[in-house]
Amino acid sequence: MDTVKTNKAIFVTYEGIEGAGKSTQLSLVASHFTDNAKKVFQTREPGGTEVAEKIRSILIHPVHETLHPKTELYLMQAARVQHIEHKIRPALSTHDVILCDRFIDSSTVYQGIGRELGVTWVESLNRFSTGDLYPDITFFIDIPVDLSLSRMKQRKNLKKDKSQDRFENESAAFYTTLRNGYLELAKKHQDRFIVLDGTLSKEALVALQIQKIEEKIRS
Amino acid sequence: MDTVKTNKAIFVTYEGIEGAGKSTQLSLVASHFTDNAKKVFQTREPGGTEVAEKIRSILIHPVHETLHPKTELYLMQAARVQHIEHKIRPALSTHDVILCDRFIDSSTVYQGIGRELGVTWVESLNRFSTGDLYPDITFFIDIPVDLSLSRMKQRKNLKKDKSQDRFENESAAFYTTLRNGYLELAKKHQDRFIVLDGTLSKEALVALQIQKIEEKIRS
Repeated sequence: MDTVKTNKAIFVTYEGIEGAGKSTQLSLVASHFTDNAKKVFQTREPGGTEVAEKIRSILIHPVHETLHPKTELYLMQAARVQHIEHKIRPALSTHDVILCDRFIDSSTVYQGIGRELGVTWVESLNRFSTGDLYPDITFFIDIPVDLSLSRMKQRKNLKKDKSQDRFENESAAFYTTLRNGYLELAKKHQDRFIVLDGTLSKEALVALQIQKIEEKIRS
Repeated sequence: MDTVKTNKAIFVTYEGIEGAGKSTQLSLVASHFTDNAKKVFQTREPGGTEVAEKIRSILIHPVHETLHPKTELYLMQAARVQHIEHKIRPALSTHDVILCDRFIDSSTVYQGIGRELGVTWVESLNRFSTGDLYPDITFFIDIPVDLSLSRMKQRKNLKKDKSQDRFENESAAFYTTLRNGYLELAKKHQDRFIVLDGTLSKEALVALQIQKIEEKIRS
């Protein structure tokens, strides 16, 4: 079944380092299209199904046992398969716009580049997991690493339990590597990547995304 | 670190379709070597660590949501990485004999052949997961499919809750495919595979395994 050609939904993914504002942007764009009588399916990775949420909890909560980078990669891919088969594929034929917070490029950047497991290898796994289902648009919301770190600090101070998830413990150098990785990936996959300046106002950013999605709907 | 060359432990894996008697054989062999002053590390896949046990519970217990074969494969590999890094690699330098119930060949046969995900692809994942750590000996305990099915039925009748794990719901044709898959794999990896006739007496089978392991220790 070639879902890419037969679906009518526009499949949009959001990428960026921590604190880029992905979820805020995604919600605002979702509201816009919902207000304009479009059926919007809002989702995120890893998660979205019973099994994927169980996997997410293994990934997010630090345990006494170290999680090996290879394990991290496999768990992300396992959650992805469940998410695609049970949520995204069905939504392709029942919705107009699918907005997904993180997708295949997060694996390539975080595990392939950040954890040094290799871009080519991670992209092979992505291909196997998605069965060649790729996003129509990938918004990379680009912010400077300093801003990412200060937003993470702010977010941590707001949390009651002061706990951090595993990636939030990483250094500035790590986030610089990730940011550069995203920029490289955006060059490699120009057909679907759109780099947005995440320091623009919320309103300006949302307007840019709406314009790009509407262009894609019309095309 | 080349663990294969520097370790002193003999790493033995057990493979077979359901009801082959793997765990019984493994325990008897373990007792023999323990009685003979060897340090034996007894383990199983999937499982063996906190994270791997969490993954095992997702794999074993049927959920309302269908587990996609690709998800199954990724979860097996994720549990494998944790098991190798936290249990098997350390045991290689602290024990004399490591006995593991199921390992890489179970993925190749169950997911690669049984679920038709491809032998070559699953073997690539196995290589990535193990970091080229292969067993010194793999015992394939071969039994006819009829015997496997009748033993599974017996086992089910002994269970209080009458539940079956996911693979126990499969048909005779599926187990024939798996058995043939194992026999093919044994031909392909003759350097480490030893096919044992699982219909022999327990004592005869144990004696054969002890002999093969002792030969390997002396070699």
